[in-house]
Amino acid sequence: MGLLTCALATGEQIASKILMKQKSYLMLSGFFEPRGVVVVGASRNPGKGGYTVVENFVKTGFKDKVFPINPHASEILGVRAYKSVKDVPKGVADLALILVPAEAVPTALHECGECGIKNVIIESGGFAEVGNHELEREVVSTAKRYGIRVMGPNSIGVVNTSSGLFTPYVSLLQIRGGGVAFVGQTGLFASVFLEYFNERHIGISKIVCLGNKCDVDETDVLEYLGNDPETKVICMYIEGVRDGRRLMTLAKRISKQKPIIVLKAGRTELGRKAAASHTGTLAGDDKIYDAAFKQCGIIRVSYFEELFDVAKAFASQPLPNGKNVGIITVTGAGGVTAADYCMERGLELPPLSKRTLEAVKRVFPEWASLGNPLDVWVAVEASGMERTYEATTRALVEDENVDALIVVLAAVSWTATDVKIFKNLGEECMRRGKSFLFVSLLGEYQIFKRCVETLEPEIPVFPTVERAVRALAALVEYRDYVMASR
Amino acid sequence: MGLLTCALATGEQIASKILMKQKSYLMLSGFFEPRGVVVVGASRNPGKGGYTVVENFVKTGFKDKVFPINPHASEILGVRAYKSVKDVPKGVADLALILVPAEAVPTALHECGECGIKNVIIESGGFAEVGNHELEREVVSTAKRYGIRVMGPNSIGVVNTSSGLFTPYVSLLQIRGGGVAFVGQTGLFASVFLEYFNERHIGISKIVCLGNKCDVDETDVLEYLGNDPETKVICMYIEGVRDGRRLMTLAKRISKQKPIIVLKAGRTELGRKAAASHTGTLAGDDKIYDAAFKQCGIIRVSYFEELFDVAKAFASQPLPNGKNVGIITVTGAGGVTAADYCMERGLELPPLSKRTLEAVKRVFPEWASLGNPLDVWVAVEASGMERTYEATTRALVEDENVDALIVVLAAVSWTATDVKIFKNLGEECMRRGKSFLFVSLLGEYQIFKRCVETLEPEIPVFPTVERAVRALAALVEYRDYVMASR
Repeated sequence: MGLLTCALATGEQIASKILMKQKSYLMLSGFFEPRGVVVVGASRNPGKGGYTVVENFVKTGFKDKVFPINPHASEILGVRAYKSVKDVPKGVADLALILVPAEAVPTALHECGECGIKNVIIESGGFAEVGNHELEREVVSTAKRYGIRVMGPNSIGVVNTSSGLFTPYVSLLQIRGGGVAFVGQTGLFASVFLEYFNERHIGISKIVCLGNKCDVDETDVLEYLGNDPETKVICMYIEGVRDGRRLMTLAKRISKQKPIIVLKAGRTELGRKAAASHTGTLAGDDKIYDAAFKQCGIIRVSYFEELFDVAKAFASQPLPNGKNVGIITVTGAGGVTAADYCMERGLELPPLSKRTLEAVKRVFPEWASLGNPLDVWVAVEASGMERTYEATTRALVEDENVDALIVVLAAVSWTATDVKIFKNLGEECMRRGKSFLFVSLLGEYQIFKRCVETLEPEIPVFPTVERAVRALAALVEYRDYVMASR
Repeated sequence: MGLLTCALATGEQIASKILMKQKSYLMLSGFFEPRGVVVVGASRNPGKGGYTVVENFVKTGFKDKVFPINPHASEILGVRAYKSVKDVPKGVADLALILVPAEAVPTALHECGECGIKNVIIESGGFAEVGNHELEREVVSTAKRYGIRVMGPNSIGVVNTSSGLFTPYVSLLQIRGGGVAFVGQTGLFASVFLEYFNERHIGISKIVCLGNKCDVDETDVLEYLGNDPETKVICMYIEGVRDGRRLMTLAKRISKQKPIIVLKAGRTELGRKAAASHTGTLAGDDKIYDAAFKQCGIIRVSYFEELFDVAKAFASQPLPNGKNVGIITVTGAGGVTAADYCMERGLELPPLSKRTLEAVKRVFPEWASLGNPLDVWVAVEASGMERTYEATTRALVEDENVDALIVVLAAVSWTATDVKIFKNLGEECMRRGKSFLFVSLLGEYQIFKRCVETLEPEIPVFPTVERAVRALAALVEYRDYVMASR
């Protein structure tokens, strides 16, 4: 989904673009907090996107703020419909969703312009993404004429959990509110991935699906999210960047306030080729991106799974004061692999302080060897699960050499009540400004789920040690950037 | 769990060791297919491992083959118990499990030796893994005197799905039989991970938990598994190798017949330090391992999750004839990221043949751009999900430029019946000697599970594109090794 056209760039257009950009925060707010929404291409046919969109508005309490446009209907789902945008009372709507066939989009845009609607999401496809560049250029020039900001075409638009706005033409899902924003040309964030966010307790502030990016692009949205008080963590999926300089300038400023995590695809020649034929994007040399991202504090990830893991850690955890990690594990193999991953990710495993050693000795047999990672297997056998984890975690939380904790459990039969001790321990850890990450090792899914449901969103739960270390390393990397740029 | 002692190595002992090694396949078979099993330390107390072990034998139909030893009991769980190993009728048992406290183990071993039992699994802990090297040396010398092969101490032993043997003192689980064997010093494979194997349809032939490796080590087991007709894929978790030369010689020979996948921990300085304090293992320079593994065809992985993904692909898929991958995806982002991962892993994305293009055009609108990865989004909109996937997959299966297929679905509401088309398509693909990997993209877990339950074990299902590409790359790497070594 999504193919980027190069907008014609005459001197005048560039100048007007710069002017528009400066106001983009204010201008974009119309996309996220509209007074009213016109739906051009609203439908009475439940199989159509133009029906689903209206249905979603009704379900989300936007019934009085949505104005379906359909030449043949007087009402849709109990909402009064209008024959044309022009029939909608002046001033009630400041956002339009367009879902009519591609050829009819320029006309619809004209009508919006005539009626003073300055924000338009074009959900229809059939533009540059399928080679129809001419039609997309017409959209751009029409929009410019009226001073309209266009998201799309080929975009399912935005989600704003604080206002309840949900523009995609896909089935509405219950969405967990929170501080994480997702931006990308893909529609995945507001559809398939949304279900994953729900299950893994990733709380959403905004989602933006940019589509073809004929006008509004990732830099506009980045600026908006940088100023958005609801957004604490910004996650982006990028294939190519149109205005690298602007992205860097913005990122440099914003990343001092909130983390920006980027999954940049088109890293390799094959990926760039795929991006070119898929979105027309010129993905550019990856080393340059890598250097640029580092320079402006962007955390880079390689996989969607990693993007979500890292986002979850940022959303819930205090930044550690340093890179010293304490690891408690009930499996020796978990400790050894954790040490590898820590070293590969630039983290340290400090020796336990004398005080900590004294404290943990109480649950271990006398002959046990104590280190970091702390393998608690023999303590569990001697003192029981709960007492062991309670004593060791508490000791490491209080250890002044430890900036962050990873606790690894390989539970076979723990109940939610058992798991709950980690909630208290984790919260105590966080109160001391230390990050706390929990691993419920790959086993039965029900057990993992039980840990997730008992501990999240306050404490992030991972299915493998490696993924927890990766997420923690991102916190440390970001913290280092923030400290260095002060 | 597990700490390696260096056995005293006089010339005579080395000679006797070499002699023993040559017979290790035959000798180890007693561990996997015992005529009868003596349990020293059997218990009537349900909280004890010595109870669980007997209970497991009863449940697995070994009731007549298990001989509990307990000086105070005449029967345990309806099985006749004996006061001493010496009271067990001669010749009925050829394997002993020892679960008595560490100090009592040498005596138990003596008794086994006196009674001609040549295979002993010491499940008791309290030896080298806690610094008690002296006691472990006593075990080794006692065993040598009687010609006993010892697995452990600190080992939960073996699982053999074909004979139903399950020696661990953990709760018995339903185990899915199959062609994958797991070996490691860790007990994870026969406990927590076992539940994961069940849910992800990884069918097991054997599991071996080596514990402290005072005698039987990974090379012995590797040799055994190399000769084991039930085992098609060998997976190993290794912290350190005692006899690198032997491992390489064996691996070189065996990897021509079946793949060996190794997760080698202690890759970094911190990991090596953790391994040393955890198992006393000298993990050695990682680059040397890397080179050695390559030379003898060992597939190396970095994470447990990766180990299992790769094992699943090997267990179910034919080896591709080359590195040309065809990718069908309903999300453009999935295609671009897939292309990146392919290139990073040495795979190619060939252009689609003329014939394929002709065939897929039928489901796409005329203006669609067709490539590899093949983004089917617009086809799905035009021709429906099922027709699109049916036509495109069939065309790529028949494309002579394509050696393997990855199909990416981002299903929101597909039922098991819908998913079933991929079973037929996948099987057709495999009949043509091409690998077929399926991705049900991160979304609701129920949908992923539905795909897993409908398609596996025949077709491996992955939650992300990256993990599918990684697994396929392992097949290609192995195939290249086998071809080159012919």
